[in-house]
Amino acid sequence: MPVYYEDVEVGAVETHGSYEVTREEVLSFAERYDPQWFHTDPDRAAEQSPYGGLIASGWHTAAMTMRLLVESQLSDAATVGAKGVDELRWLVPVRPGDTLRIENEVLEKNADQPERGVVRARTRTYNQEDESVFSMIGNVMYLRRDGE
Amino acid sequence: MPVYYEDVEVGAVETHGSYEVTREEVLSFAERYDPQWFHTDPDRAAEQSPYGGLIASGWHTAAMTMRLLVESQLSDAATVGAKGVDELRWLVPVRPGDTLRIENEVLEKNADQPERGVVRARTRTYNQEDESVFSMIGNVMYLRRDGE
Repeated sequence: MPVYYEDVEVGAVETHGSYEVTREEVLSFAERYDPQWFHTDPDRAAEQSPYGGLIASGWHTAAMTMRLLVESQLSDAATVGAKGVDELRWLVPVRPGDTLRIENEVLEKNADQPERGVVRARTRTYNQEDESVFSMIGNVMYLRRDGE
Repeated sequence: MPVYYEDVEVGAVETHGSYEVTREEVLSFAERYDPQWFHTDPDRAAEQSPYGGLIASGWHTAAMTMRLLVESQLSDAATVGAKGVDELRWLVPVRPGDTLRIENEVLEKNADQPERGVVRARTRTYNQEDESVFSMIGNVMYLRRDGE
């Protein structure tokens, strides 16, 4: 049975995932959506980038985080998308070879409409060294169980 | 010559792009990064979704917007990534067959370090009907021309 608005608990924390970041995926995402040289040119990145080598596009990190969120909770939830996301922060570079996981914490709920409500949650993404590499605050629309 | 921090003007507005959103790309992005049924299952989306059909993942819309931003300005700019992005808002569904363009407006500048500064800019994405489908506020790090 899907998770409805009423089932979400403020303060609940869930961790999930083990996403392996491959060099091939870093390059293919960046070539299509974020073709800046520090994401697409390994040789130049190694020589000239302040990051000391190739790093993933921040949008790629956000997308991988979303994949983990869908796996961990959204696939079982009665949701209809997000109203918006706030405070995307890229804290530590994500590099080929990293393994990512997420921690999601429900911050607040707001039943703004008869048929649905908004769940505000902070998602933090960690690498295999337990460094927080990325965080964001999502506002996801959940259906209410008795909503019409 | 690249665009440095000093070259960016507060209030400057640029428009760019003509990105065709294909059904194939909507499905392939969502299957990998956002496999929720209203992004990946055209039949169920047509029957059950409040959006009346298949829509692009919001992260896909953000990624396409980034592509247009890189083409229009970041590829010629002395930037080293973004500190963060605020207020991502998905305003109107993006659907297969849409054509997207962006409008970017520089809101403020802040020379927070000797060697670089932050340019805060709002990017709005429009479809072929001139509807604003997405907006966000980015904080991009530009190198200063005389920075060491």
